[in-house]
Amino acid sequence: MKYRIEKDTMGEVQVPAYKYWGAQTERSRNNFKIGPSASMPKEIIEGFAYLKKAAAYANCDLGVLTIEKRDAIAVVCDEILAEKLADEFPLVIWQTGSGTQSNMNVNEVIANRAHVLKGFAIGEGEQYIKANDDVNKSQSSNDTFPTGMHIAAYKAVVETTIPGVEKLRETLVAKAAEFNNVVKIGRTHLMDATPLTLGQEISGYAAQLSYGLKAVKNTLAHLSEVALGGTAVGTGLNTPAGYDVKVAEYIAKFTGHPFVTAPNKFEALAAHDAIVETHGALKQLAVSLNKIANDVRMLASGPRSGIGEIIIPENEPGSSIMPGKVNPTQCEALTMVCAQVMGNDVAIAVGGMQGHYELNVFKPLMAANFLQSARLLGDACLSFDEHCASGIEPNYKRIEELVNNSLMLVTALNTKIGYYKSAEIAQTAHKNGTTLKEEAVRLGYVSPEDFDAWVKPENMVGSLK
Amino acid sequence: MKYRIEKDTMGEVQVPAYKYWGAQTERSRNNFKIGPSASMPKEIIEGFAYLKKAAAYANCDLGVLTIEKRDAIAVVCDEILAEKLADEFPLVIWQTGSGTQSNMNVNEVIANRAHVLKGFAIGEGEQYIKANDDVNKSQSSNDTFPTGMHIAAYKAVVETTIPGVEKLRETLVAKAAEFNNVVKIGRTHLMDATPLTLGQEISGYAAQLSYGLKAVKNTLAHLSEVALGGTAVGTGLNTPAGYDVKVAEYIAKFTGHPFVTAPNKFEALAAHDAIVETHGALKQLAVSLNKIANDVRMLASGPRSGIGEIIIPENEPGSSIMPGKVNPTQCEALTMVCAQVMGNDVAIAVGGMQGHYELNVFKPLMAANFLQSARLLGDACLSFDEHCASGIEPNYKRIEELVNNSLMLVTALNTKIGYYKSAEIAQTAHKNGTTLKEEAVRLGYVSPEDFDAWVKPENMVGSLK
Amino acid sequence: MKYRIEKDTMGEVQVPAYKYWGAQTERSRNNFKIGPSASMPKEIIEGFAYLKKAAAYANCDLGVLTIEKRDAIAVVCDEILAEKLADEFPLVIWQTGSGTQSNMNVNEVIANRAHVLKGFAIGEGEQYIKANDDVNKSQSSNDTFPTGMHIAAYKAVVETTIPGVEKLRETLVAKAAEFNNVVKIGRTHLMDATPLTLGQEISGYAAQLSYGLKAVKNTLAHLSEVALGGTAVGTGLNTPAGYDVKVAEYIAKFTGHPFVTAPNKFEALAAHDAIVETHGALKQLAVSLNKIANDVRMLASGPRSGIGEIIIPENEPGSSIMPGKVNPTQCEALTMVCAQVMGNDVAIAVGGMQGHYELNVFKPLMAANFLQSARLLGDACLSFDEHCASGIEPNYKRIEELVNNSLMLVTALNTKIGYYKSAEIAQTAHKNGTTLKEEAVRLGYVSPEDFDAWVKPENMVGSLK
Amino acid sequence: MKYRIEKDTMGEVQVPAYKYWGAQTERSRNNFKIGPSASMPKEIIEGFAYLKKAAAYANCDLGVLTIEKRDAIAVVCDEILAEKLADEFPLVIWQTGSGTQSNMNVNEVIANRAHVLKGFAIGEGEQYIKANDDVNKSQSSNDTFPTGMHIAAYKAVVETTIPGVEKLRETLVAKAAEFNNVVKIGRTHLMDATPLTLGQEISGYAAQLSYGLKAVKNTLAHLSEVALGGTAVGTGLNTPAGYDVKVAEYIAKFTGHPFVTAPNKFEALAAHDAIVETHGALKQLAVSLNKIANDVRMLASGPRSGIGEIIIPENEPGSSIMPGKVNPTQCEALTMVCAQVMGNDVAIAVGGMQGHYELNVFKPLMAANFLQSARLLGDACLSFDEHCASGIEPNYKRIEELVNNSLMLVTALNTKIGYYKSAEIAQTAHKNGTTLKEEAVRLGYVSPEDFDAWVKPENMVGSLK
Repeated sequence: MKYRIEKDTMGEVQVPAYKYWGAQTERSRNNFKIGPSASMPKEIIEGFAYLKKAAAYANCDLGVLTIEKRDAIAVVCDEILAEKLADEFPLVIWQTGSGTQSNMNVNEVIANRAHVLKGFAIGEGEQYIKANDDVNKSQSSNDTFPTGMHIAAYKAVVETTIPGVEKLRETLVAKAAEFNNVVKIGRTHLMDATPLTLGQEISGYAAQLSYGLKAVKNTLAHLSEVALGGTAVGTGLNTPAGYDVKVAEYIAKFTGHPFVTAPNKFEALAAHDAIVETHGALKQLAVSLNKIANDVRMLASGPRSGIGEIIIPENEPGSSIMPGKVNPTQCEALTMVCAQVMGNDVAIAVGGMQGHYELNVFKPLMAANFLQSARLLGDACLSFDEHCASGIEPNYKRIEELVNNSLMLVTALNTKIGYYKSAEIAQTAHKNGTTLKEEAVRLGYVSPEDFDAWVKPENMVGSLK
Repeated sequence: MKYRIEKDTMGEVQVPAYKYWGAQTERSRNNFKIGPSASMPKEIIEGFAYLKKAAAYANCDLGVLTIEKRDAIAVVCDEILAEKLADEFPLVIWQTGSGTQSNMNVNEVIANRAHVLKGFAIGEGEQYIKANDDVNKSQSSNDTFPTGMHIAAYKAVVETTIPGVEKLRETLVAKAAEFNNVVKIGRTHLMDATPLTLGQEISGYAAQLSYGLKAVKNTLAHLSEVALGGTAVGTGLNTPAGYDVKVAEYIAKFTGHPFVTAPNKFEALAAHDAIVETHGALKQLAVSLNKIANDVRMLASGPRSGIGEIIIPENEPGSSIMPGKVNPTQCEALTMVCAQVMGNDVAIAVGGMQGHYELNVFKPLMAANFLQSARLLGDACLSFDEHCASGIEPNYKRIEELVNNSLMLVTALNTKIGYYKSAEIAQTAHKNGTTLKEEAVRLGYVSPEDFDAWVKPENMVGSLK
Repeated sequence: MKYRIEKDTMGEVQVPAYKYWGAQTERSRNNFKIGPSASMPKEIIEGFAYLKKAAAYANCDLGVLTIEKRDAIAVVCDEILAEKLADEFPLVIWQTGSGTQSNMNVNEVIANRAHVLKGFAIGEGEQYIKANDDVNKSQSSNDTFPTGMHIAAYKAVVETTIPGVEKLRETLVAKAAEFNNVVKIGRTHLMDATPLTLGQEISGYAAQLSYGLKAVKNTLAHLSEVALGGTAVGTGLNTPAGYDVKVAEYIAKFTGHPFVTAPNKFEALAAHDAIVETHGALKQLAVSLNKIANDVRMLASGPRSGIGEIIIPENEPGSSIMPGKVNPTQCEALTMVCAQVMGNDVAIAVGGMQGHYELNVFKPLMAANFLQSARLLGDACLSFDEHCASGIEPNYKRIEELVNNSLMLVTALNTKIGYYKSAEIAQTAHKNGTTLKEEAVRLGYVSPEDFDAWVKPENMVGSLK
Repeated sequence: MKYRIEKDTMGEVQVPAYKYWGAQTERSRNNFKIGPSASMPKEIIEGFAYLKKAAAYANCDLGVLTIEKRDAIAVVCDEILAEKLADEFPLVIWQTGSGTQSNMNVNEVIANRAHVLKGFAIGEGEQYIKANDDVNKSQSSNDTFPTGMHIAAYKAVVETTIPGVEKLRETLVAKAAEFNNVVKIGRTHLMDATPLTLGQEISGYAAQLSYGLKAVKNTLAHLSEVALGGTAVGTGLNTPAGYDVKVAEYIAKFTGHPFVTAPNKFEALAAHDAIVETHGALKQLAVSLNKIANDVRMLASGPRSGIGEIIIPENEPGSSIMPGKVNPTQCEALTMVCAQVMGNDVAIAVGGMQGHYELNVFKPLMAANFLQSARLLGDACLSFDEHCASGIEPNYKRIEELVNNSLMLVTALNTKIGYYKSAEIAQTAHKNGTTLKEEAVRLGYVSPEDFDAWVKPENMVGSLK
C-alpha cells in the first residue's frame, strides 16, 4: 500500500495515500486494534456531520468563520450524510472514552476532502481548511461527541424504535378489537383460571406497548439537549457569545428534530444520564415485548401437544431434521433482542456511573449499546408485526373445547353458594375426571337448571368495550 | 407452644394458638422456609391494609357488604396501619409469586381479629367476618397484590426517595451558588484541563439530580394506577358494577395520594411494567449519585497525597489500625447503595419479563427489590446530605495552587496563536518542568505582557450566572 | 433511655448504658441511618468472632498477647458464636465500605464484655482488654472484614448452598432413573418434536445441577484464602513474623474448613474477585434452576387446558377467588430466588469493579448480596425438593395420548424415504387433521406394515442406560 | 439482480443467481431484517465448517455416507475455513433461536458449492450432495448449533482471551519485580495510608489476573463438551451407533483442541450453562481489569494537579481543543470493554435461563455476546499491554515527596506508644500543617532519635520477596 506522511503535534505518521483521514485517525487505528475495525456506529458519524455543519454555520454567523470556509465544510458534511465517504471512518468503539479520535477522524476527513474539492492533492500544500482550527472551531471532543451521540440516539429512537413499536401496537389494537368476543380460558400461574376473551388478552399486550411508548417519549426532552458550546469542560471556553443556542438551532434545522442547547453544560459533558434515562425506557419495552412474544409462542404451541389456541404464520421450514415442523421463529428473534437490550442496559449504566470530574469517558460504549438497542427493537417489532402478529388467528375449535372443559368456571358459583362449596365441587370434579355440573348436582349444591343459568363463560368476561 | 386447629379447603392445619393468622398462612410458613422469616416488606402489609379498607367501603357503597361488616374490617385495617399487629405477618418474599398467601395472611388476620373484637376467642364459633367471602370480597390475590405493591411503591418514592434526593439537590444548588466564583482546575480523563469554578462543577451534580427527579416524576402516573377490580384474570368477575373506580377513589382518599383505577386490568395483572418503569428512573438516580459521590471522595482525597481541593466533615475515626485517619465514609455508603440499586434493577427486569398469560408471578420479588431501592436511595441521600454534602468546603489554598500551575491554561492561546504553537508551549513546559509563560516567551510566540493579559483562569470559566 | 459516656480519638459519645458497644459503634448508628437497623448479616459477625479468636491465639503463640488476654477474648468470641450477644450488633450494611465500624463494633463488644466478665461495670475503670490495642492487635479492618466475609461466604456455600442443591440433584437423579422408560413427546421451540423419555428429560436437569455444583466447587480454593495478616494495605505492618500463616491455621481449626492465608495480601484487600468468582457460579445455578422450575410448571400445567404431563404435589389452596385452584408455588418461589441471584450478581460485580488503590470499599455490599444468594439458593432448593420435585409423578394417560398423536414421529421415516417425502406426509396430516399412517399410506410412500414397524416412539429414544 | 428458483418443503423461493445459498437461507434473509445483515459471527460459521467436516468423516466411517460424498463435503468445509466463501453467509443473529437457518445456510452452501465443484451450474440438475440428507446427515440444528458455538467459544477463549490476558499478566509480574523496592504511599478509601512498594501494588494486579485465568481454565472442561450426536431432542435419533464419540474425536482432530462428546445430550441442547459458566469467568476478568485500568489512570493522573506517581506512554494528542494534553486512552478503551462484558454477562444469563423443555432458543444471542466478550478482552489486554502497561515507569521524585510527607507513617508508632497517642500526633500535625516528628516531639511522646529510628517508610512495607 502507498502512504503519505501526515503530522500532528506529536510528530509524523504514515497514512494510506488515498484516504482522507490524517495523523490522529491513523494513530488510533494503530493503537486500538480491539475487535473488528470500523465498529464506531455510522449513526455517530452521521451525527458528527450534522453538528460540524451546524458549527460552521454558527461560527460564520457569529463572525469567527468566513462564509467560504463555512460552505467548504458544509459541502463535505453533506457528502458524509449522503454516505459518499463511508470508507473514511475506520475507527473502533474501543478507543479513547471521549471519542476524541472519532472527532478528529471527522475533522481530518472534512479538512482533507475540502482541500481536494478545492483542487489540491491530499496532503499537499497548506490546508485551506484546518482540522483543529476550522472544522473543530468552537468545539471540543468533549462537547461534540455527546452532541453526536444525542443526535444519533434521538434519531434512532424517533425514526426507528418508536415507529416499529407503534406499528406492532396498532396491529395488536386491531387484533384485540377483532377477537373481542372470542371467549377463551384464562390462565394464571400457567394453570386454568376463569375465562376472558382473546381480545382482552391481546389488549393487555397493546396496553403494555402504549405505556412503553409513553415512557420513551417522556425521556425525549432530556435527550434533545445537546452539549455543544460547552467545549472542554463545560465553560464554553473559546466559543463566541451566543454560540451554544445558535448551533443547537442549526442542528434542529438540519435534522428536523427539536434539539436545544443543554442548560447545564457541566452535566452534559460529565454525565450521560439522558442516555441512561432513554435506554431505561427501551429496557422497559424489552421487558414488555418479552412477555408478549413468550405468550404468543405458548398460545401457538403444538400443533397437537401444546396449547394451540392461536395460529401464527408459517414462515419457513422449522427443522433440518424433523420434516414438516414449523416454529415460532419471530418470537425467538424478538426475545433474543429483548435479552440483548437487558444486557445493553447494564453496560450503559456501568459506563454512565463511572464518570470522573468534568468528563465521562465511556461515551462510545454508551452510544454503541444505545444505538444497537434502538435499532434492534424497532426492526424486531416490524419483523414480528409483519411475519407474526398481523397473521395471528384464533383456533376457534380448540379455544371452545378448552374453555368449556374448565374447572375454574366454578368461580361463578362463589357469589351463589360461597367459596368453600365451590371449591368442593371443583376438587371433586378434578378427582373424578367429571364435569362441574355433574358434581354440583350430585353434591346437591346446585340444580341443573341453575347451573346452566349461572355458569356461562360468556357472562364471566366482564363488559366488552 | 400451644396450637389451635384451623381449616381451609384442603383440610386441617395446626396454628399457634394466640396468633390471628389462619390455615393458609400457616401452610405457607411450613412450605416456604426460604431465607429469614417475615421478609415480606411491611410496606406491602400496609398497602394491603389500605386496600382492604377501601374494598370494604366500596363493597358497602355498592350494596354487597353491610355497614357493620365494613366497619369491622376497617377497624382492623386501622390497627394494622398503626402497626399494632406487626407480629401477625410472618411470611416470606419467596412464596407463591402472586403473593396469594400474603393476601390470605391479611384476610385471615382481619377476620380473626374482628372476631376477637366482637368478643369471641380466636378460632371459636362461626366467624362473623369471613376471610374469603367478606374481607376478600370483590378481590383476588391477582389484583390485590399488585394494588398493595403500587400503594407501597408510590408512597416509598413520594415520601422517602423524592424528599431525600430533593434535600441533597437543594444543598448542592446552594453550594453551587456559594462557590460560584471559586476558580479551580478542571479535569477530563482524570487529567488537568481548563479551569472552571467549584460552583460550576457542583451545579452539574445538582443538574443530574434535577433530571433524575424529573425522570422519577414522569413515571408516577403509571405507578398511580391500581389493578383492584380486575380480580382473577382482569375481567372483574364477581365485582359489582362501578367497583373498580370507587375502590380506587377510597384508596386515594385513605392514602392521600392520587391513585386511580388502571384502565386496562389485563396489563395490570399480567405485567408490572410500572414497577420496571419507575425503578428504571431510580437506577438513573443511582447512576447519577455514584458519579457525584465518587467525585466528592476524589476531590476530598488526601490529606497530603491526594487531590485535596475540598474538605468534607470528619465524622468518625477512619481506621482501626491507622491513627488519625479520616475517610469519606458517606460516599462509600452511598456508592454501595447505588450498586445495590443497579442489581435490583436487573432482578426487577428479570422478574418483569417473565409473566405468563394472565399473570406475572414475580410480584413479591419485584416489590421487595423496588422498596429496598426506594428506601435506601432516600435514606442514603439524607445521610450523605447531612453528614457530608452540607459540610463541603473549598480548600482555597490547594485550589489556587493547582489552578495557577496548570499547563492547560495554554488553551486560552488557541484563538491567539493557533492550536499547534499552543501545544508546543505546553509540551515544552511539561518536559522542562517550567511555566507556560516562561516557554511562551522563550519560544517567541507571546510577549510577557500579552501572556498575562490573555492567560487568566478567571477569564476562562465563561459567564457565571 | 440511660446513657454512659464513651470516648474515642475524636472525643466523647453517649452510648446506651447497658449495651456493650462503644463510641465508634454509636457514631456509626448515628451517622448511617440507611435502611432497617442491624442489617449487617449475622454471618459476618460470626465470621468476625472466629477471626478475633484466631487472632488472639496467633498473637499469643507469637508472644505479643498474654494467655490471660487471649482467653478473655476467646471466651467472648465463643459467646458470640453461641448467639448470646445477638443484640449487640446494631450496624447496617450501608456504612463505611471497609466495614471498619463493624470491626470496631466487634472489638468494642469483646472488650467491654470481657471487662464485665472480669467483674467490672461497663465503662468503669481502666479496660483490661482494649478494643484497638488488644482485640484488634495485628489487625486492620482492611484485612479483618474480607476475612470475616470469606469465612461467612465459604460456610454459607458449603453448609447451605451445596447441600441444598445436592439434595435436589439426588432427587432428580432418582426420578430420572424411575421414569427412564416413560416415553413421551419431546418439545423444541415449544413445538411438538420427536419423543424422549421423561427420565431422559429429567436427567438433563440433574446434569445441569451437577455442572453447577462442579462450577461452585471450582471456586472454593480462591474463597478459602483469607486476607488476615495484611493489615492496613497488605504489607502486614504491625504483625509479628509468621502471623498470617498461623492465624489462618487457627481459623481453619475453629471453623472446621480448610482456610489458608492468601498468598498475595494486596489482591486480598484491594479486590474481592473471589466473591465475584463464587457468585458467578451461584448465578449459573440460578440460570439452571430457572430453566428447571419453569419446565416443571409448564409440564404440570392444567389441569385441563395445559400440558399436564406430570403431576406435582398440591400444597395449599391456590387462589383467594378461584375455588379448588392449585398452583406451582414452589416453582414460583424458586424462580423468584433465581431472579434475585441474577440481580445480586450485578450488584456484586459493580461493587467488585470499583476498588481504588489498596482497598475495595464495597465490602459490606458484596458480602450481604453474596450471603443472601447463598442462603436463598440452598433454602429454595430444599423447599422445592421437599414440596415439589420429590413428589413429581407422570400423568401416564396424558403422556401416552400426546406421544401417539404426534406428527413428529415422522422423523423416523427420514432414513427410509428421505426428508422431503416425510415432510409431505406430516404437512398433509397436519392440514387434514389425520394420522401420519393414514397419509403415509394414502400418498403411497409407506405400506401399513412398514409404517407400524418403522414408526415406534419407543424405538426413537436412543439407548436407555 | 438475477435470480434462480430454489425449492424447499414449503415451496419455491427466488435466490440471487450466483449465490451458493438456497431457499431456506433466502427465506431467513427476507423474514429477519433485524439489524445489520450478516451479523451472525464468522467464528460460528467456522465452527460449523469444522463440525460438518467431522460429521461427514464420522458418517463415512460408520457406513452411512460414501467416501466420495465425505470428500466432496470436506473440500467445501476447507474452503470455508480458508475464508474463501465469506460472502455466502448473509444471515443475522436475530433469527430462529436454534440457529436452524444458519445451519441450513451452511448445508445449502456446501451442497451447492460441491455441485459446482463437480462441474455443474448452481441450481441445475439433481444435486449430488443434498443439503438435508447428506450434509446434515446424523445432525439437527439443535445439536449442530451448540456444537458450533462451543467450538467457536473454546477457540476464542483459548486462542485470543487467554493469550491476551497472559501477556498482560507477564508484563505486570515483570513490573512488580522491577519496582519491588520503590517505596510509596499506600491509599485506602482514596486517603493516605501506610506505605507499600510500587512493586507490591502491581503484584496485586498480577495476582488478580492469575486468579482470573485460573477461573477461566476451570470452565474449559465443560466448554469442551459438544452436543453433536444428540440430534433433535438429545436422544440421538437417526444417528448410527458410536457416532457421537467419533464425531467429537474428529472435531478434536481438526481443530487441535480437546473436544469430547457431552455425556448428557439433553442438557447440551436444552441448556447452555457452559456458555454461562465460562462467561462468568470472563466477567470476573472484566471486574479485575476495570480495577487495574482505573488504578493506572489515577496513579498517572496529572501532570500537575493529579496523583502523578507513575508515568504512562503518550500515544496520541489527547484533545482537539487543549493543546499538549495527553490522556490515559488505553485505560479508557479497556474499561469500556469491561463495561461491555458486564452487560454481555446479563444478556447471556437472561438467554440461558429461558430454555424451554428440550431446547434453549437463545443460542445465537448467547454465542454472539460470548464471542464479542472473548475477543474484546483478549484484544484489549494486548492493546493495553503494548501501549500502556509495558511502558509504566515510576515518577520517583513525586513518589518520594508524597511518601515522606505522609501522616500515616504514624502507624509505626502504634506498637511503641499505643493507638491513642499516635492518633493525637497525627491529628495535631494535620491541624497545624506540620510534620509528625515535630508534633511527636512537642507532645513529648517520642524523642527525635526514637522517631527517626522507628518511623522509616522502608521498614513499613513488610518482607519484599
